[in-house]
Amino acid sequence: MSHQESHNTQSNIAYAIILAGGSGTRLWPLSRQSLPKQFIPLLGAETLLETTALRLAPTISHENITVITSKASATGEAMVHLAKYAKIIEPCARGTAPAIGIAAINATQQKNDPVLVVLPSDHVVTQVADFQTCLNAAIALANERETRHIVCFGITPTYPGTGYGYIKTDLTSYNQTHKPYVNVLAFKEKPDLVTAESFITEGNYFWNAGIFVARASTLLTAIKSYLPELDIVLSKIQQDIDDGIKFDVAVNSHFADAPTISMDHGVLEKIPSDSAGISLTLVPADIGWSDVGSWDSLYDVSNKDNDANVISGNVLTLNSTNLLINAGKRLVTAIGVDDLNVIDTPDALLITKRGESQNVKAIIELLQLRGSKEHIEHLTVQRPWGSYTVLEDAPSFKVKRINVLPGGRLSLQSHEHRSEHWVVVAGAATITCGEKQVVMHANESIFIPAREKHRLENHGTETITLIEVQVGGYLGEDDIKRYDDVYGRLSK
Amino acid sequence: MSHQESHNTQSNIAYAIILAGGSGTRLWPLSRQSLPKQFIPLLGAETLLETTALRLAPTISHENITVITSKASATGEAMVHLAKYAKIIEPCARGTAPAIGIAAINATQQKNDPVLVVLPSDHVVTQVADFQTCLNAAIALANERETRHIVCFGITPTYPGTGYGYIKTDLTSYNQTHKPYVNVLAFKEKPDLVTAESFITEGNYFWNAGIFVARASTLLTAIKSYLPELDIVLSKIQQDIDDGIKFDVAVNSHFADAPTISMDHGVLEKIPSDSAGISLTLVPADIGWSDVGSWDSLYDVSNKDNDANVISGNVLTLNSTNLLINAGKRLVTAIGVDDLNVIDTPDALLITKRGESQNVKAIIELLQLRGSKEHIEHLTVQRPWGSYTVLEDAPSFKVKRINVLPGGRLSLQSHEHRSEHWVVVAGAATITCGEKQVVMHANESIFIPAREKHRLENHGTETITLIEVQVGGYLGEDDIKRYDDVYGRLSK
Repeated sequence: MSHQESHNTQSNIAYAIILAGGSGTRLWPLSRQSLPKQFIPLLGAETLLETTALRLAPTISHENITVITSKASATGEAMVHLAKYAKIIEPCARGTAPAIGIAAINATQQKNDPVLVVLPSDHVVTQVADFQTCLNAAIALANERETRHIVCFGITPTYPGTGYGYIKTDLTSYNQTHKPYVNVLAFKEKPDLVTAESFITEGNYFWNAGIFVARASTLLTAIKSYLPELDIVLSKIQQDIDDGIKFDVAVNSHFADAPTISMDHGVLEKIPSDSAGISLTLVPADIGWSDVGSWDSLYDVSNKDNDANVISGNVLTLNSTNLLINAGKRLVTAIGVDDLNVIDTPDALLITKRGESQNVKAIIELLQLRGSKEHIEHLTVQRPWGSYTVLEDAPSFKVKRINVLPGGRLSLQSHEHRSEHWVVVAGAATITCGEKQVVMHANESIFIPAREKHRLENHGTETITLIEVQVGGYLGEDDIKRYDDVYGRLSK
Repeated sequence: MSHQESHNTQSNIAYAIILAGGSGTRLWPLSRQSLPKQFIPLLGAETLLETTALRLAPTISHENITVITSKASATGEAMVHLAKYAKIIEPCARGTAPAIGIAAINATQQKNDPVLVVLPSDHVVTQVADFQTCLNAAIALANERETRHIVCFGITPTYPGTGYGYIKTDLTSYNQTHKPYVNVLAFKEKPDLVTAESFITEGNYFWNAGIFVARASTLLTAIKSYLPELDIVLSKIQQDIDDGIKFDVAVNSHFADAPTISMDHGVLEKIPSDSAGISLTLVPADIGWSDVGSWDSLYDVSNKDNDANVISGNVLTLNSTNLLINAGKRLVTAIGVDDLNVIDTPDALLITKRGESQNVKAIIELLQLRGSKEHIEHLTVQRPWGSYTVLEDAPSFKVKRINVLPGGRLSLQSHEHRSEHWVVVAGAATITCGEKQVVMHANESIFIPAREKHRLENHGTETITLIEVQVGGYLGEDDIKRYDDVYGRLSK
């Protein structure tokens, strides 16, 4: 593959690539496949994605951030959160190496071999000023013209955690003020406890925060050298672009052929510490970092009240300590309990003993076994055009709140077994019912008889909210015949 | 006051008076003032009221049961549960002595001085056959013509509980087969722990189950002798009846003048053990009884699974033991927790450590202090005509499910600030809107503009279910002007 060489010497110009394609359920029931934790406010009012972007400022402003996410995640509420960023939508999930590869190609199209800051969208950093100091040091290194650096962020371990990858370094020449970085000797996968303890004892190991900084060309060179099967795919994409095909189209044509692998495992681990071409460097980062991989770790990084509780939402506690309670509008009360995580959502509640929250995955497996959906979708179900929430589900009727984003178009459809009553409560809804098309506003309603073709569209600038009352003998989501759909979901 | 003397010698004919006027919140959040625990299924599918009635069979059939409840409780869902019984509605709450007084007068009107079995509606008895044996023994005693018995049920204490009243007895002549009853020596109010322990050691003390059996005339005589201030009120009611006034009307005229006092405290405790007129007798009752005064006590009397858990509803547990989980449709999951009560309702969740559930009252006080309603009403709010449930509450719109019982009539009303869209999903709704009156069935809808007078009535035999979408700038329940109301709730 070809890419442009660069000799940009500005020390602080960089662009961020935020990786937001994860679909983790470790923070279930708040995080679910269809709206994972990066799109959810966990600490305070902002989503983790938004706080990730905010902590890059003032070094990297919003317009220099590109978010990469998967097609599966790029629906409804997630799209609202992504609206202000440049976006790359992966057509399918292939891990971080392919995602970073196409992001580097995309950046190279737009800028002359920029320095890229690649970072996950779903981590917590409590010491933002320290993060920014590290960030600027890393960007300065990546900007050097004499050496091709890939600069990792290394978190000083606070305990022998077995849930993190470790990076072994050479600390001999480290000086926080004058040389705030070290050479990487080796990457170590998640260790067992004994190994982790030995890492802590040795003292020159850091947690791999999954944040790294390098020129686009350096990342692509590393992929070419150490992950040739991905390079083949990236080269095809680059060739299409060189042939005048749009970036998105080129990605959609070839991305599925990429191997599923992470940047750490597929590329970085393979770079020898004495590599002549690429210098693997680490900035020790004591920044109050957490990957928020469990409710226990969210508790650890949160501010506690006088009872050592971390409380959000409508909560009353009595004689209770060391609680993480994440509630919403619904009242949650606790009496005489200690060391619990309590996560309340509209359709699912989780209670775990502190220290047991990693077993959420076992609950997810049980839900899969019984064919439930609570691990996949929230009560508010995300759709390409917006979202819907079932407010009431009875044998002979169903009530939904439907939100349609500006530009959103539901398919032209009909139902065999149910009629629908629509009451618009916000926005301007363009409604097709049979041969008729009307624009309806708040406080107007329409009846859609069974078997009538109908469609709901938002040609306005405000989100439409509509209450739908379905009446019929069968109310399953599969009673739908689609005649036209802009999202490619036609009935066969 | 006057009443008829009786010399009925049949040994097993009796009538039951079930006291269902309690508005307890000790089992909050499932039990609330507007729908207390007797009207809720706690163990299995039946309400406690229904299981109370079922365990009286075969001795006392449904048609020989009268339920006394308060006007405040006799709404919506409670009325559905009460439909099959004769009812006495207390116009206000005055404790058990006045309730039993009017029930005795009512019974005397209908039967010739019947034996009455008076019992609470909200207790659990797990050994039903043993209960029935005790019941028949008590009825036989109450039927005796030579002695006027008031027969109490005495529960053999299993621990020195401080939450119960105790009854001291003379066990010397007790024989389970030939003389399964004993003389009462004294009533003891809820003791402190040391006193309770001494009661257990002495061995002749029983818990007062609040169940007693006596002829109506005996109860009225006892009230006359020991609670004359109540007798004055009962005499006025009797006089009205003798003058041809209907029982309900007479009760409504005078009941508020009755003292607020329990039968135990106001009457039974005052009867000397050597009373010539009335013999206080106790049937020792080892019947698996609980007054279900707390979530802890519900756990104690419930069947446990292999993990010693008591689970109902949509629940998944993992490595968790000694739990009481009471859930509904919403998924409740627990990981690695022990010794908890978890009570999940649509608008409030309670988690308590086992042994702490009596502190629910402190949570109720906190809710009162902050002006909340979760301790008073359920999400489904009971009304004289049925109930409503808020499905969605947003600044500019509100969605409700409204259920109107057969015969129910909402007031003729109008709203200044909101319009309403009604979609009927079940039943036949007689709807007045302005000058127009229509009968609407499932899948029909109507628009009620702001300021239009309207009314909803059920002249059918099936409960109406209707989805209401309110749209307007102000959606408070107080934006209502009532022009006519069968339940006496007119606007001033």
